[in-house]
Amino acid sequence: MGEFELIRNYFAAAPCAQGGEGVALGIGDDCALLALPPGEQLAISTDTLVAGVHFPDVCDPFLLGQRALAVSASDLAAMGARPVAFTLALTLSQVDAEWLKAFTQGLNRMAQECSLRLVGGDTTRGPLSLTLTVFGAVPAGQALTRSGAREGDLLCVGGALGDGAGALSLVLNQRIAEPSVAEPLLARYWSPQPQLALGQALRGKATAALDISDGLLADCGHIAQASGVRLVVEHERLPLSEPLLKLLDLPSARQAAVSGGDDYVLAFTLPPEHLAGLLDTGWPVQVIGRVAHGSGVALVDADGQDITPSSRGYQHFRSEP
Amino acid sequence: MGEFELIRNYFAAAPCAQGGEGVALGIGDDCALLALPPGEQLAISTDTLVAGVHFPDVCDPFLLGQRALAVSASDLAAMGARPVAFTLALTLSQVDAEWLKAFTQGLNRMAQECSLRLVGGDTTRGPLSLTLTVFGAVPAGQALTRSGAREGDLLCVGGALGDGAGALSLVLNQRIAEPSVAEPLLARYWSPQPQLALGQALRGKATAALDISDGLLADCGHIAQASGVRLVVEHERLPLSEPLLKLLDLPSARQAAVSGGDDYVLAFTLPPEHLAGLLDTGWPVQVIGRVAHGSGVALVDADGQDITPSSRGYQHFRSEP
Repeated sequence: MGEFELIRNYFAAAPCAQGGEGVALGIGDDCALLALPPGEQLAISTDTLVAGVHFPDVCDPFLLGQRALAVSASDLAAMGARPVAFTLALTLSQVDAEWLKAFTQGLNRMAQECSLRLVGGDTTRGPLSLTLTVFGAVPAGQALTRSGAREGDLLCVGGALGDGAGALSLVLNQRIAEPSVAEPLLARYWSPQPQLALGQALRGKATAALDISDGLLADCGHIAQASGVRLVVEHERLPLSEPLLKLLDLPSARQAAVSGGDDYVLAFTLPPEHLAGLLDTGWPVQVIGRVAHGSGVALVDADGQDITPSSRGYQHFRSEP
Repeated sequence: MGEFELIRNYFAAAPCAQGGEGVALGIGDDCALLALPPGEQLAISTDTLVAGVHFPDVCDPFLLGQRALAVSASDLAAMGARPVAFTLALTLSQVDAEWLKAFTQGLNRMAQECSLRLVGGDTTRGPLSLTLTVFGAVPAGQALTRSGAREGDLLCVGGALGDGAGALSLVLNQRIAEPSVAEPLLARYWSPQPQLALGQALRGKATAALDISDGLLADCGHIAQASGVRLVVEHERLPLSEPLLKLLDLPSARQAAVSGGDDYVLAFTLPPEHLAGLLDTGWPVQVIGRVAHGSGVALVDADGQDITPSSRGYQHFRSEP
């Protein structure tokens, strides 16, 4: 038995490869089989993370496993899908038992948190990279897409913005901070919490949704374009975390909140009549603007003046030109 | 708009991203959505191909696109699944418009042949590799797994064996051959024909099935293990193609047929009463052995003597240790 077959057996025996609703056949055949209840559709998303591009060449494999799955699961949250399963295509430059053990532990932890079962994949030799494909279920016609925002809707987010970008400066050693500041930010970076429950709670309420991975303004631009509307973001309503405000001054923190990425909180548009109900049931929903007639995204100050920055781009770990 | 966003738009506009039954939402949102008819299960398989490991660093991108999808689709054939959709995670070291155009043409061609629609993916920068995930549909309980072979079943394959291994020696320039020999073999290598229709025809008939990717004996070993039986392969019944017999002498051709990989024809076990019906309707089914009591795989000669080679390993383009 070759090293790579051993690895396949290793993953097949991992806790995250066991159990799970909706999985009719797991690892070990030519295909996995998923069985959804009648009336449900399958949501699918694929993400690749490449060493040296999306994460440091040298990083803690536990954190990498945890983060990789969380980032993918966040796309299921953005559709309002119930998590079901995932596949992992893992390309390794060398086989290191300690690395694999820690990586699988991180993967297991997040799989458990997200109720996702590993149902298949591939292990190959080559430069380190991971491709995760996640599967969720959503009642037919109820998925949250990007195209339903309507003039008059509120623009909301599911939590503090900018922590991902603030943390990245720590990951890249561009800044240093005392533990009380660094630790919560690094936790947000290495262990994002996909807002799966919020996404499902937004079904039938939100008119459009996505998860913020490339930065608030850039991602809101996707909703604006798909829905044929204009999104107006109010600068002073951006939710900022305490650690971020200790790491950065207010203008820099706001800059991180509008142009930073890797936050993996949901952004969504909501008819005003649904706001009170969501707040009453304790969802961490923050109104940051509104949907208007027109196109594109505008950032406005307290007086309603347009202060949209010319560049909205977000540089991930290393930029993709 | 960055280069990689341009590529995403490029794939979204590709012919293979259009149409297709069972696709409720294609490229462009956080997830794709598949809708299966009630009573059907979803079959999923993921394969990664890495440059320099699974294909030459320099190769025709049209052929690469075509082959990559065919190899993945073959896993759907092995389950008896009807092809539905696929995702492509493409990691590129540089963006080359000509390369992308040819690659997409190859991908489109195979997608059309297999009735598979591109519904999503990811494009990233890094060392060239591809991860394809394919999706098919199969009536609940009718998927062909590896675990149902029973003593008394016939062992069958869906066509000639060894062409993949024969072609590899041409791809690697280890052999040369005149065009009348090289061309059909190279076509088998670069444009394998996933036996999707045969797989579906075997539903309710074959007791176990898989596609031969790692070599006949190695792959039959998977059926033997999963089913708890012994598979006996008769050396003299191995179907060999004319071009292979022109490239190699008979012993070498038989060696390629039992230990070579990359053939992507189906191997399956079949209760004898189903054979005539399959042959009558014109399926290219060849009986090569039988299912016996015991475990493992045996290769026997015309006198029933065990001539199983000690090493069954198949070396792909470059071996994975």
